[in-house]
Amino acid sequence: MSWLIGLDWGTSSLRAMLFDGEGNVHEARQRTWGIRHLPEGGFDAALSAICSDWPACPTLAAGMVGSRQGWREAPYVDTPADIRIIAAHLVTVKSQDGRDIHIVPGVRDAGAPDVMRGEETQLIGALDLHPEFHTGARLVLPGTHSKWVDLRDARIAGFATMMTGELYAVLLNHSILGAHLTDTSTTERFDDRFDEGVRAARASGPAGALTRIFSSRALVLEGRLPAAAVPDYLSGLLIGEEWRAALAAGWIDSDQAVVLIGDEALCLRYRRAAALFDLPDPTWIADAAARGLWRIAQAASLTGDRPRATKEFHA
Amino acid sequence: MSWLIGLDWGTSSLRAMLFDGEGNVHEARQRTWGIRHLPEGGFDAALSAICSDWPACPTLAAGMVGSRQGWREAPYVDTPADIRIIAAHLVTVKSQDGRDIHIVPGVRDAGAPDVMRGEETQLIGALDLHPEFHTGARLVLPGTHSKWVDLRDARIAGFATMMTGELYAVLLNHSILGAHLTDTSTTERFDDRFDEGVRAARASGPAGALTRIFSSRALVLEGRLPAAAVPDYLSGLLIGEEWRAALAAGWIDSDQAVVLIGDEALCLRYRRAAALFDLPDPTWIADAAARGLWRIAQAASLTGDRPRATKEFHA
Repeated sequence: MSWLIGLDWGTSSLRAMLFDGEGNVHEARQRTWGIRHLPEGGFDAALSAICSDWPACPTLAAGMVGSRQGWREAPYVDTPADIRIIAAHLVTVKSQDGRDIHIVPGVRDAGAPDVMRGEETQLIGALDLHPEFHTGARLVLPGTHSKWVDLRDARIAGFATMMTGELYAVLLNHSILGAHLTDTSTTERFDDRFDEGVRAARASGPAGALTRIFSSRALVLEGRLPAAAVPDYLSGLLIGEEWRAALAAGWIDSDQAVVLIGDEALCLRYRRAAALFDLPDPTWIADAAARGLWRIAQAASLTGDRPRATKEFHA
Repeated sequence: MSWLIGLDWGTSSLRAMLFDGEGNVHEARQRTWGIRHLPEGGFDAALSAICSDWPACPTLAAGMVGSRQGWREAPYVDTPADIRIIAAHLVTVKSQDGRDIHIVPGVRDAGAPDVMRGEETQLIGALDLHPEFHTGARLVLPGTHSKWVDLRDARIAGFATMMTGELYAVLLNHSILGAHLTDTSTTERFDDRFDEGVRAARASGPAGALTRIFSSRALVLEGRLPAAAVPDYLSGLLIGEEWRAALAAGWIDSDQAVVLIGDEALCLRYRRAAALFDLPDPTWIADAAARGLWRIAQAASLTGDRPRATKEFHA
């Protein structure tokens, strides 16, 4: 089988992986060239720089690179979406140096409505790494826009977004809650203040945690919460709100362990919050993007499972 | 009775009112000298400029001027708080030109906890303007930090804050929801998009509207919501969330009309949202700050109801 270049190309970073013919990551590189932070020369320059000295081979990209603000828009496919549907809707853009870049489409849930872009590749990877998810699983991909996902019959059956990470950032950096804070970062090792925030979210009941966010300001004014602890308290309140809302909306059941995919420090916060909601301990997957890119490339026959006419697909 | 200068001194503006001896506003002036936007010379300069050519007379100020970042901190009094308690806890600061400025304390609800500063004066005014509120009323003061207030036995019995106005502003100005918007202002005449947002909030049920805010982005991507309509949609979603949360938290009953105090255009949005929640039509009070300042000054005997020793209290 052919080698493959896989690109995880988001808003704030670009990750490139060179896969050998067996799907193993031979080498990985990361740069800060997200689609809003491209170097001079744009997408072309970023790609040729990050892949310099790698062999020419089929290239598959996932993430915001396929958005309207990306290199080429790869229109959303609808839920329920599986690997076959996703692989059948790749969009191709030709780079200045003549190579075809295949771009993975995002997925749309017509319900709310809601959209994802990049997470579908993680989910395809998770399905491949964990065959037990095929019959059904609930996954959470925490982040700027957390995704709560219902996998069923090896498909992305439905999902919903909570803007927790972005809400946290804008409240700390631009609202009264972060006023007088010199450092708005949380620490890797969170503490009791995070727990207090989670408990306040749980206690908010059906009214929800928006009824409690101003209380963090009041707690500071009263001297009951040090200003430096606001980030952890607010983190707990907003992550707790995700669990509260997910239970209230029926996205998860209280007796089924969910699967977390993402950054370890952030996922540890979600695990802690689950414990404070008396929920089963979630399992954790660090990253499934590489596996997802490889599997989608295979399904689209980019890796040479079936012969392809165009020369540049073979290293 | 003596004349009085009343100051409604908030974060972003300063309003000064000269009352005649009967409590009528003889003249009112407004400047942009909120406590975060003071002119050179600070509080003293702002006060003497806005009161220039007014007779020397007792001066009472309410609002953020009494916060820790204000001229002099006027510590919170606890709920239940009435006019007598508030008037008994004025704090005094002497200006450079020798006058005493009396400052109204804020009110604290130890529950959540929660705090208000400036609204207590509006509430004292509303109680005076509407004796029927003495037995009990639910009031909403919409704004940057909306206050939902329980008046009982002519006291501020309890209250809660929703950061709706601030949340709206930070989401539109600093999050993906406002990306690609050239104008993030709403219009005075809101339209169907506002209604759609309110309905989405109501439909969110116990899960709450944070599960829906990202959908405004998805609606734009799908072409179902023009980007220019996002401010009105988000306004509807967040104001709708206030009503949803207020009902879920038991702050209001579904069969009792609430009272709105504040800016007319904003209060019209709250009235429209109440209608979409099938709630009784709220009544509206434009502004009760002037009446509140006068009544608190009377209760504190600043207006000469009782003789006072210090000379500068008499014009």
